[in-house]
This record gives sequence, structure tokens and C-alpha cells, in this order.
Amino acid sequence: MSQSSTPASRTPVTAAILVIGDEILSGRTKDKNIGYIAEYLTNLGIDLREVRIVPDLMDEIVSALNAIRARYTYVFTTGGIGPTHDDITADAVACAFGVPIDHDPRAVAMLAERFPPDQLNEARMRMARIPQGADLIDNPVSKAPGFRIGNVHVMAGVPSIMQAMLDHVAPTLKTGVRMLSETVLAGLREGDIGTALGEIAKAHPDCAIGSYPFWSETGPDTNVVVRSRDPEALMRAVAAVQAMVEHERSRLKG
Amino acid sequence: MSQSSTPASRTPVTAAILVIGDEILSGRTKDKNIGYIAEYLTNLGIDLREVRIVPDLMDEIVSALNAIRARYTYVFTTGGIGPTHDDITADAVACAFGVPIDHDPRAVAMLAERFPPDQLNEARMRMARIPQGADLIDNPVSKAPGFRIGNVHVMAGVPSIMQAMLDHVAPTLKTGVRMLSETVLAGLREGDIGTALGEIAKAHPDCAIGSYPFWSETGPDTNVVVRSRDPEALMRAVAAVQAMVEHERSRLKG
Repeated sequence: MSQSSTPASRTPVTAAILVIGDEILSGRTKDKNIGYIAEYLTNLGIDLREVRIVPDLMDEIVSALNAIRARYTYVFTTGGIGPTHDDITADAVACAFGVPIDHDPRAVAMLAERFPPDQLNEARMRMARIPQGADLIDNPVSKAPGFRIGNVHVMAGVPSIMQAMLDHVAPTLKTGVRMLSETVLAGLREGDIGTALGEIAKAHPDCAIGSYPFWSETGPDTNVVVRSRDPEALMRAVAAVQAMVEHERSRLKG
Repeated sequence: MSQSSTPASRTPVTAAILVIGDEILSGRTKDKNIGYIAEYLTNLGIDLREVRIVPDLMDEIVSALNAIRARYTYVFTTGGIGPTHDDITADAVACAFGVPIDHDPRAVAMLAERFPPDQLNEARMRMARIPQGADLIDNPVSKAPGFRIGNVHVMAGVPSIMQAMLDHVAPTLKTGVRMLSETVLAGLREGDIGTALGEIAKAHPDCAIGSYPFWSETGPDTNVVVRSRDPEALMRAVAAVQAMVEHERSRLKG
């Protein structure tokens, strides 16, 4: 739907997320980053179009990254940039871009702010390995930086650090016209309004209309969410949904 | 890592999840299914290898589904099987498999258990549209069924319904040798043990060793998670990690 909601006169700014980590796929760790980034990008007028979660395997990371970085304006990765052997994201990104990777003096300097020389061991120095040509992304929480290369932003998996890195990156992003959203509480079950709602969706191609059933205290109910970048188109579609919902309510309950 | 943790003598049972829905990509709805399914499959000895989240767009669903269903033993989809115009999962799956789709008498009968004839309208009948050759997946919560075709299991997006459908599907799944897991609390920062842990990981290719930093009451700490399907290999690697951690603790903390 999101595509049809973008006025043809504008190029939408799009994004994908690549979550890297066995611990997410095993279920041991429950991802807290996807929903946060999704909401964050929506508020910037950037359309999140795809998410992938892949294991800590070089080939999987490289092929997924190359597939999505070619398709979307931006890619955001989370996870795999720590000091241990299973943190291979930086090497995978260097491989995907076909550039060398080595200890970056700027990253080493950041780590040196936190760790005295005797603690800046081989493992921690892994966190200073940055693909050639990348810009660093500050990490105010634990210093070890993320980085941006091309349209790919490589961030930590720890939510507090990822969120700080995203705040650092946001001002550098090209943003689109913000998607506006209005929710109409139907007071009816989804199946009561599905047919009429489908007709309204057809009649308002400049809006994305979604239907989300839920259980209220009084029983099954439905939130109809209308989204558009055009405030007037949004108002027209919302008015049509409200009129339809009132009509159906009086027909079924009245 | 999960691949190297599978004894060469066995074929692993693998899976992917395809989450379908604009509301997840917009951040309006936070996914609750991925982590649940991941943990569920791990407990069945099935390796979840990939997750994708795509919008309510036919081409996106079809191409993602065709890419993953060819790669993994099983695919589980969530979302897009409701009664409204934006519920296009069943049509997309039929398209991916190149089979026709129509109202399925078995599914119509299930809906008829819940809805009197005057309520079984066009919208609700959408939920009885099932690709030819599919088996139905019971929905004890709200009747509208999911379905299985080939290695693809199509389930609802509402967590309570998805979970009931997964319980229905589980007995039909080929399961692998269950992955065993032991966690060693390091009492040290990840960077203190990274190098030694990497050597242990190299020396124990029959185990997957992950390192997960977190903040304890006393400061930064690390959980080292060792996973294997071979109990003895697991014990050997855990013992090596414990010995290393004790050595580093005494070395660093005296």
C-alpha cells in the first residue's frame, strides 16, 4: 500500500533494515530495534519497505546486504559490531562493498577515550576495524563506533546504543514528505465493513487504508487506519470511512 | 554459527519466517510473532535461518516467498489473511505456487460455524479463499483458517491466533535433534574475554559460541552462550569457557 500512497510527483525516500544475529533467530534475544527504527523512519517521512534478519554467517550477511542496498535509499543494520569472534558485521560490509578493512585511527582514538592502553587488547581493537572509506557513527554510550558506507548505516544491536546512533545519523538523512495518519474506530467487526472499505480504498488511490481488528472490552472491534502524504486526500478518505462506518453501524445495530 | 553446530552426519531441519504487513513496517504495530516462533522452532530442533518482513504488495510477497521457500525446509508466514482489501496473502501464495485460488468448501464450512448466513458476506468469504491443493490449518479462536501448501504454512498475524495455529501445525513438522544450550556468566566485560573466547570457538567447531554483553547491577557483564546438538561436545566447550573465564577474572581482578 505504501507505494500507492506516495504522490507520483515525488520520489519516495525508502529504507530497509538488516538485523544480524543468531541470538535473534534462536529466540534467545527478542528484537527491540525493528519496531523502534520503523516508527523513527516513518516520523522522518522515510518508507521502511523491507526487513531481513540473518545469522552470523559471512555469506548470508553479504548477499542480503547487497540485495537490499541496491533497492532502497538507505539500509540500517543492527548487531555484530562487538569485540568477539561472532561479531563479523564490519568484515561482511567491507566484503559486500569490495573494500579493504583495517583498524581506523579515528575509531582507535574513540576506544582510547574509554580504555586505558593495557585494556585496549586485540578483542577491543576489533571494534576499531572499519571498512575503507566509511564515516564513523558516534557511540556516546560505550564509545565503539558504528559507521556509514555508501547508503548503509551499521549500528550496534544493543537498543540503547542503536538509538543513540540513530539520533546521530538522522540529521544526515534525506527525508520525505511525512506520512500523515488518521485512525477511525469502527465499532464493528472487520468482516462487517470489509467490502465497503475495499470500495473506499479503490476510490482513494492516493491513500493507504489498513484495517486492524482487535478485542475491545465490548468485543471484537476494528481500527481503520488511513495514511497519506496529502492532507486533503487524507481528509476525504477519512470522511468516506466515517460515513461508511456510521451507515453500517445503523444498518447492523440500529 | 548455527550451521557449524549441526553434526555433519545429519541434515538440519531449517525454517524461515515471512511477516506480511504495512502496519509492521510503519511501526504502528510492533511484531510479537517473530520471537515467539523463533523460540518455538528452536525447541523443536528446527533452525530458524532467516526472517523477512514485507509490505502488503503482491509482487513483494510473491518474490520473497519464492526466494525463501526454495531455500529452507519450512516457511511460516504471518499476516494478511483477514477479510479486508489489504489482506492479499492467500492470493500471493497461490500466485507464488502458480495454482488457482477460490472459495474452499471446507473453509466456508468453518466460517459458517461462526457466522449466520446473513453475516457471511463477501468480505468474510474472502477468508475462505484458499489456494488449490492446500491443507487447512484450524483456527480455534476465530474460525477463519490458515493453510499449508507445499512447505509453506500461512498463519494469522494476530498473536493469539498465530500461536493456536502453530500448535496445530507443530505435530506435522519434521523435527531435528534439539539444540542444547548452556550459558556461562563471565563476570567480565565482553572485551576482556573476546580474544580467548575466539580461540575456544575455533577449538570447538562442533559448538556455536555467542557472546552477549549486558549491564548488571555491578556494571558491564557478559553472558557466553554455548550451543550444540552433541551433549558431550557442549560440556567440553562449556568447561573450556568456564576455565578461561576464571583465569581471566583472577588475572584482571587479582
